[in-house]
Amino acid sequence: MTADPQHLLAALRARRSLGPRGLADPAPPPEVLQQAAELALRAPDHLALRPVRFVHVGRDERTALGELFARVALDQGRDAEGVAIARERALTGPTLLAVVARIRDDVPDVPPHEQWLTVGAAVMNLLHALHLQGYGAKVLGGSPARHEIVRRAFCHAGEQLACWVIAGTAAGDPLPPATERPPRDLLTDWTPPAD
Amino acid sequence: MTADPQHLLAALRARRSLGPRGLADPAPPPEVLQQAAELALRAPDHLALRPVRFVHVGRDERTALGELFARVALDQGRDAEGVAIARERALTGPTLLAVVARIRDDVPDVPPHEQWLTVGAAVMNLLHALHLQGYGAKVLGGSPARHEIVRRAFCHAGEQLACWVIAGTAAGDPLPPATERPPRDLLTDWTPPAD
Repeated sequence: MTADPQHLLAALRARRSLGPRGLADPAPPPEVLQQAAELALRAPDHLALRPVRFVHVGRDERTALGELFARVALDQGRDAEGVAIARERALTGPTLLAVVARIRDDVPDVPPHEQWLTVGAAVMNLLHALHLQGYGAKVLGGSPARHEIVRRAFCHAGEQLACWVIAGTAAGDPLPPATERPPRDLLTDWTPPAD
Repeated sequence: MTADPQHLLAALRARRSLGPRGLADPAPPPEVLQQAAELALRAPDHLALRPVRFVHVGRDERTALGELFARVALDQGRDAEGVAIARERALTGPTLLAVVARIRDDVPDVPPHEQWLTVGAAVMNLLHALHLQGYGAKVLGGSPARHEIVRRAFCHAGEQLACWVIAGTAAGDPLPPATERPPRDLLTDWTPPAD
């Protein structure tokens, strides 16, 4: 590397998740999302299975997504208030991406957990690319992502919705840097077993 | 960000996996490994479950690891040559880290696949931190990592060995940058279902 590595590391270290209340307009433009998705593709991917892709939910499609979330809430037996809250969730974040995973169980050399590692690494790269270009983001899970109604609306056969990513511009003052001490067992030296 | 974001992105994009033949001494020193592990900790981690830790296999412990690999190969019915090859594998790479995952199935808000995303994101950060400090690395899988003999030698109850990471100094000329075009479905716009 020609640049100061500590500077680059500090830039990555400064990233933190920004939730719905920490994100405002403007949303990252299409070229920033494309660059982020392309960095995601640079994650380690044994046998190039490409287990991940991203689906962008545009502003005009948020209402339709809200109706899907409302159907999920109804199906889960929520009351009127719960359904309304579920519908609102679709409006969260200036940008909303669905992370779609295709985890194959017919590749002996790359078991499912290794494919999930690739999906997670890809999402990490996506977040870094957004962060480095000045945008905040957060990974969101939640049970609607795993409901068949939502799965069918985003995934082909053999795929599942791994998580959501919301993104936008950091609203308000930046958060103070995390100063938490690393856990003591984060990196240890191996001792061979006695037997 | 104060630095040029395209410069930072290019630095991340330039990372590529370097396998055993692409890695030479010197190995990354302890402080570089520690920084890399600490950046790994900055991966998104819903409810702070901390599903990942790293175990460094020192030079002096490679022989003992080779004996474990040989026992696995014997258990898997390999012949003498296969056992010898398995034993040799423990000597791969100037630095060898085991990535240990603890995936809980008792956290309804964070299903196992989301914990795997965190492990994958953590490994991605580890690789970036090594890369930015001038070291090459590669994720390695393989069936011995999943064998009970190896699991017991690295993991506590409820943990599993997710993968290995080898690291060192890039040997020989750097590889040309990847120029592959991204797949067309990498980032698409959502169309709500018709029904």
